Amino acid sequence: MIGVSIVGGSGYSGGELLRLLHRHPAATVQQVTSERFAGKPVSRTHPNLRKVVDLKYCTIGDLGHCDVLFLCLPHGEAMRRIGEFANLAESIIDLSGDFRLSDGEAYKKWYGREHVCPEWLPQFVYGIPEISRDELITARYVAGAGCNATAAILGLRPLYRSGLVEQVVIEVKAGSSEAGNAASDASHHPERSGAVRSYKPSGHRHIAEIKQALAADRVYFSATSIEMVRGILATCHVFMGKDLSEKEIWGWYRDCYKHEPFIRIVKDRSGIHRYPEPKLLSGSNYCDIGFERDTDSNRVIVISAIDNLMKGAAGQAIQAFNIMHKITETAGLEFPGLHPI
Amino acid sequence: MIGVSIVGGSGYSGGELLRLLHRHPAATVQQVTSERFAGKPVSRTHPNLRKVVDLKYCTIGDLGHCDVLFLCLPHGEAMRRIGEFANLAESIIDLSGDFRLSDGEAYKKWYGREHVCPEWLPQFVYGIPEISRDELITARYVAGAGCNATAAILGLRPLYRSGLVEQVVIEVKAGSSEAGNAASDASHHPERSGAVRSYKPSGHRHIAEIKQALAADRVYFSATSIEMVRGILATCHVFMGKDLSEKEIWGWYRDCYKHEPFIRIVKDRSGIHRYPEPKLLSGSNYCDIGFERDTDSNRVIVISAIDNLMKGAAGQAIQAFNIMHKITETAGLEFPGLHPI
Amino acid sequence: MIGVSIVGGSGYSGGELLRLLHRHPAATVQQVTSERFAGKPVSRTHPNLRKVVDLKYCTIGDLGHCDVLFLCLPHGEAMRRIGEFANLAESIIDLSGDFRLSDGEAYKKWYGREHVCPEWLPQFVYGIPEISRDELITARYVAGAGCNATAAILGLRPLYRSGLVEQVVIEVKAGSSEAGNAASDASHHPERSGAVRSYKPSGHRHIAEIKQALAADRVYFSATSIEMVRGILATCHVFMGKDLSEKEIWGWYRDCYKHEPFIRIVKDRSGIHRYPEPKLLSGSNYCDIGFERDTDSNRVIVISAIDNLMKGAAGQAIQAFNIMHKITETAGLEFPGLHPI
Amino acid sequence: MIGVSIVGGSGYSGGELLRLLHRHPAATVQQVTSERFAGKPVSRTHPNLRKVVDLKYCTIGDLGHCDVLFLCLPHGEAMRRIGEFANLAESIIDLSGDFRLSDGEAYKKWYGREHVCPEWLPQFVYGIPEISRDELITARYVAGAGCNATAAILGLRPLYRSGLVEQVVIEVKAGSSEAGNAASDASHHPERSGAVRSYKPSGHRHIAEIKQALAADRVYFSATSIEMVRGILATCHVFMGKDLSEKEIWGWYRDCYKHEPFIRIVKDRSGIHRYPEPKLLSGSNYCDIGFERDTDSNRVIVISAIDNLMKGAAGQAIQAFNIMHKITETAGLEFPGLHPI
Repeated sequence: MIGVSIVGGSGYSGGELLRLLHRHPAATVQQVTSERFAGKPVSRTHPNLRKVVDLKYCTIGDLGHCDVLFLCLPHGEAMRRIGEFANLAESIIDLSGDFRLSDGEAYKKWYGREHVCPEWLPQFVYGIPEISRDELITARYVAGAGCNATAAILGLRPLYRSGLVEQVVIEVKAGSSEAGNAASDASHHPERSGAVRSYKPSGHRHIAEIKQALAADRVYFSATSIEMVRGILATCHVFMGKDLSEKEIWGWYRDCYKHEPFIRIVKDRSGIHRYPEPKLLSGSNYCDIGFERDTDSNRVIVISAIDNLMKGAAGQAIQAFNIMHKITETAGLEFPGLHPI
Repeated sequence: MIGVSIVGGSGYSGGELLRLLHRHPAATVQQVTSERFAGKPVSRTHPNLRKVVDLKYCTIGDLGHCDVLFLCLPHGEAMRRIGEFANLAESIIDLSGDFRLSDGEAYKKWYGREHVCPEWLPQFVYGIPEISRDELITARYVAGAGCNATAAILGLRPLYRSGLVEQVVIEVKAGSSEAGNAASDASHHPERSGAVRSYKPSGHRHIAEIKQALAADRVYFSATSIEMVRGILATCHVFMGKDLSEKEIWGWYRDCYKHEPFIRIVKDRSGIHRYPEPKLLSGSNYCDIGFERDTDSNRVIVISAIDNLMKGAAGQAIQAFNIMHKITETAGLEFPGLHPI
Repeated sequence: MIGVSIVGGSGYSGGELLRLLHRHPAATVQQVTSERFAGKPVSRTHPNLRKVVDLKYCTIGDLGHCDVLFLCLPHGEAMRRIGEFANLAESIIDLSGDFRLSDGEAYKKWYGREHVCPEWLPQFVYGIPEISRDELITARYVAGAGCNATAAILGLRPLYRSGLVEQVVIEVKAGSSEAGNAASDASHHPERSGAVRSYKPSGHRHIAEIKQALAADRVYFSATSIEMVRGILATCHVFMGKDLSEKEIWGWYRDCYKHEPFIRIVKDRSGIHRYPEPKLLSGSNYCDIGFERDTDSNRVIVISAIDNLMKGAAGQAIQAFNIMHKITETAGLEFPGLHPI
Repeated sequence: MIGVSIVGGSGYSGGELLRLLHRHPAATVQQVTSERFAGKPVSRTHPNLRKVVDLKYCTIGDLGHCDVLFLCLPHGEAMRRIGEFANLAESIIDLSGDFRLSDGEAYKKWYGREHVCPEWLPQFVYGIPEISRDELITARYVAGAGCNATAAILGLRPLYRSGLVEQVVIEVKAGSSEAGNAASDASHHPERSGAVRSYKPSGHRHIAEIKQALAADRVYFSATSIEMVRGILATCHVFMGKDLSEKEIWGWYRDCYKHEPFIRIVKDRSGIHRYPEPKLLSGSNYCDIGFERDTDSNRVIVISAIDNLMKGAAGQAIQAFNIMHKITETAGLEFPGLHPI
């Protein structure tokens, strides 16, 4: 059994890691930290784990050595203590934004501050298995990808491999759990309920990841918060250099994803679930992708759905963990999602 | 025109008072206070009033004299400063719980502290026009009724007038705006969204108002928060001393409410809106009431719906205001609610 | 008083017309038709109008003469009977898609069938007052604009007047009432609740209206159904020929809309309601518009919100009605919307 | 491996059975029937099972022999064909209401028609393992309990064992999936969304099951539909013959449930999840139970939450299946639910 610990386990990603790891066939959770809830049972913050996971929070200072350390800290904290954490574990999987960009300059531009340890950036593998599986096999340090970035990158990658994309406009619809578990005026239920709120029309940090992963430049991105707790739907308007046939597009997607365990192409001609819908993915690690050709132009609309806490955070981290340890890639990630929900 | 001011106008009830008063044919809003937002336009906290109400918040210290002062302060604050407020206005309509109970002992029991000015209690009229219209005509001081209490009292009163009620179990389903506009862990959207949360199975303060208004003793009350922003549905299980016929029950309700402008008996034999539904009442001052006889027992189920911020707060306050000033009772309260919503 | 009748009054737009007209200072509703509910009170389908509007449905065959006829029929039915309706009334305001396009060929392309009376098309004025107020003053026949089209056109028009727009990607988030009041598998609550469903990634009919109204060609449009009953948010990614300053953009919007009673520019630097949100507009006739410059490109993101049943249907129809009859443009449309909701 | 087939598999319970059985360690699904979707893949109606369950629907006529037959037919259909089904399988687990009542007279009273095969009633064991585990071990025929009844019975049973209950008022809050997957006017999203609808204030059929299982008479029950897809919260107002201490109540619950794998007593003194909440149980087989003493009376408020499609239908059926086959009772039912959701 691989011994793992979780730093910053009282948040939503930490809770999902705990849920996934407690039934993982090859992992055992040693410690979970929370400065605020140290000494309290984890079910205090993760009520779904009552009678399921029997652990108590400790502090970071209490951490012992382990095989793998999952970091679920606020952005900026992992990089400040990375040396300390690296001494505690063979490998680290960081779920924050600290090590996603390979370039300190890009970090500065998008995060608005200097990276405190740019020398660590090259050591981290960007954690989307579908695009970096080979590197993950030998990786010691993994940077979990951003949730919006994951949805967009997975949806767009096959088209970018065609070399024909001219530009893309990505419009993300996001749930409230994306902003974490800290209450604020904006998350107050009477205000947030039923909202359709343009929270980041321009300048979203995930743009940097998308450009980096797709080696693309003309990427335009906006995000809108909608009435949903979990889930992301990315609608990507892709402008192609020439008009591709339906068959050609299918070809690019099949080529990329036919062996992928967590990608499903969803494109039905009838019924009510013709395209991906995030609510069907709650708790699952799937990324569902669909597309439609605009017969009036060279635009292809790509629709990509994930659960932001799973394929967008904890689930993808476990998938990377499995690859790093040569375990069946789907281990611990078999839950298919619910319907209806 | 009657000059009114609102103390504590940045909360949800304050916002509704502003919305109602700015188009009221006989009132003009002089000042609105908010210690936190003093100097800011009221649309900062009430975005629906952008371009509609052109006022800025002032502090309580800035208040001048007015005809009527509406108090929308947190429980406990109105009673502490009542003398000061009484010097500023001819009449006061208080929306807090401070002056609802006529008895200082009852206040202490239900609010867990001594009333600071029990001598003021007899001067306040309990502000449900359907039960105290005559007193309101001559009242100077009005205590706006609690929202859950209003729904329950209006639903139950006709049956209590029969003298046959033995006991009642009231189960209130409430929206999130009932708890006010302050963010908390419990109101954080990912936690509060979709919740069905027993927030007060016993000991709710509104029980005291209900017992007082109905002169009843065996009143049992629980409240559950559900996915809703505005609205209350009170389901009241009334155990009668004898089996009343449908016609007799109709008689009691008609007798009580046939001339009431804001009470509708909703009881359809077919269709999808057979009983009251709070969502249809958003923004309206109606209390919709339905009932069903349990043919297996002496139980009558009474279903009562209101908008907690309207008939449960600001709307009922304006209704009382109209009565006090001999204005058409429905003035400023004509909005009928929306469908669908 | 102007005598009006409503054809097809049992649907959602018909219900809103009834709600607005019953308190309109210059109109009186003579008849309302519904073939299915003939003989039944209108509150049977519009439960918010119980005790408010005391009318019964009749059939189309029962219709007498009136000053203005509002048509709320399914697409395709108005054009089939337009001659018959024109004999019944001085003017007609049609809320369907039948007379929105000025060109029979365009109709055929987007609606997939021949127009049955193309000779009537030039007689209809496209009913967005902000762009055709002058023509409405003398119009006899008005075609109410599509809801998504209204949101997009109003949001985009100032930028198009600059002559600098190169292309636009419009991403509409829409509520369930947009699809009308007929139940279907897709509208079944367990399936539709919480959905984020790409219902029309390409080929939406409203594209034709947008292109016509803006005299634009490179317009790309997708629509996604989200968890919401009323409301539309159109996020428009506008690619400009050159980089406009914030001030210049403000200039174009102010120039267009500074005297418009139903347009509000919503663009706050702080607070939680920085950009338009459709939920604040439920029941109101406002179109709230905001924008943000992408400092990394020539993209301007325009955010436009309406209530699809009001500014997107019944409200805008009443606004046109007021203009046609030289009544105060806001008559009957003063409700400002609710907060919180 | 135990060979199972599902009759009527295209509905919501059928979908959950498929989801649970495809990963069950001791069962293999042979056939699934749907007259409407025969020949189509099961993912057509259960989109969460895309790429997960690779089966096609057949008709009832195509059914071969199997070990266990799960019946998910509309009420009334199982009893009409029970002989036919009994010839096809060793055992039957029926999820309809046809065999829940042990007495044909009671059936007639509550279902409003004669039972067509009352001689079969004694052969069926009522399928709530916590109250009939011993009988289930040797049962061939199991009647899955009603969802509302399950929540109420499990919540109330410990108190009834005290012999001190005088009467109980049960108020159930239910989600929309309880009514099945057939679209109707009442389930149309604009109408059903945000509803708080008294759909069965009296006369609910589950009352019969509750009275039977608790051997109780004075049971009063109402059900209200709220904004929720999955889930039930039963708030039970229990009037006791004497005032029980907190400790005594704990004693009755502990005594009943201390070894139960799917019952959790949820009663926290602080935090935001002090009592059971159904949303935390989506996809899980837990029944969470909490209680509060009303210090003002002999009333105990019992709060009981389940997922209506799991512990209220498919999950409980699998639990019974496991017991019947001496498999670990939790096999296939380990999913703990999600947070946040």
